Amino acid sequence: MIVCRNEMKVEVKERMRDGEGTARITYLLDASAEKNARMFAEVSLDPGCSIGYHQHESETEYYFILSGTGTVNDDGKEFQVKQGDSVITGNGAWHGIKNTGSVPLVFHAVIVTY
Amino acid sequence: MIVCRNEMKVEVKERMRDGEGTARITYLLDASAEKNARMFAEVSLDPGCSIGYHQHESETEYYFILSGTGTVNDDGKEFQVKQGDSVITGNGAWHGIKNTGSVPLVFHAVIVTY
Repeated sequence: MIVCRNEMKVEVKERMRDGEGTARITYLLDASAEKNARMFAEVSLDPGCSIGYHQHESETEYYFILSGTGTVNDDGKEFQVKQGDSVITGNGAWHGIKNTGSVPLVFHAVIVTY
Repeated sequence: MIVCRNEMKVEVKERMRDGEGTARITYLLDASAEKNARMFAEVSLDPGCSIGYHQHESETEYYFILSGTGTVNDDGKEFQVKQGDSVITGNGAWHGIKNTGSVPLVFHAVIVTY
């Protein structure tokens, strides 16, 4: 099945997971019928915006950074991330992400369930 | 866990799945320890290159087009794809993809197993 970009649902969330500012979420597909997965999204955070620190139990969330720069709190440790980096958070671990640069921080977010 | 781009394994495959030319695969993480997933990769096909038509049983492969343009054979029907589009292939369906443009066709490929 093909899903064209202009058919995708877009949501703008304020203070996502108690973060700062807004997160623009483009759902790359409707995951409701997928097996062992519950979200495939492109997330865009403007400078200064963040998704707050939160936990993933019984699932793993993967972030794949497409553009921009930011800071990830990876289960208690802070790291800088940039285009091409991956972030893996599962088995009860926590993460949060903030745009610390001057251009949008854009990444793919995929959640695999188990 | 963070995986930086410069730590990622890269493979150049010739005639992947009986396709044409070469496919450059950057593994976004080592999926061997992941649950319900077996591949997270960025794939780059130069103009004219392709991944041949192949089937996905007991798993779904997702392509998320990052740049370039191409043709996808989606279980027997041909579609044009471009930046931002998604391709979903599972439950025994088949797909193949070819770069029909003049710049690299780059996409994320994610395989969720079940």
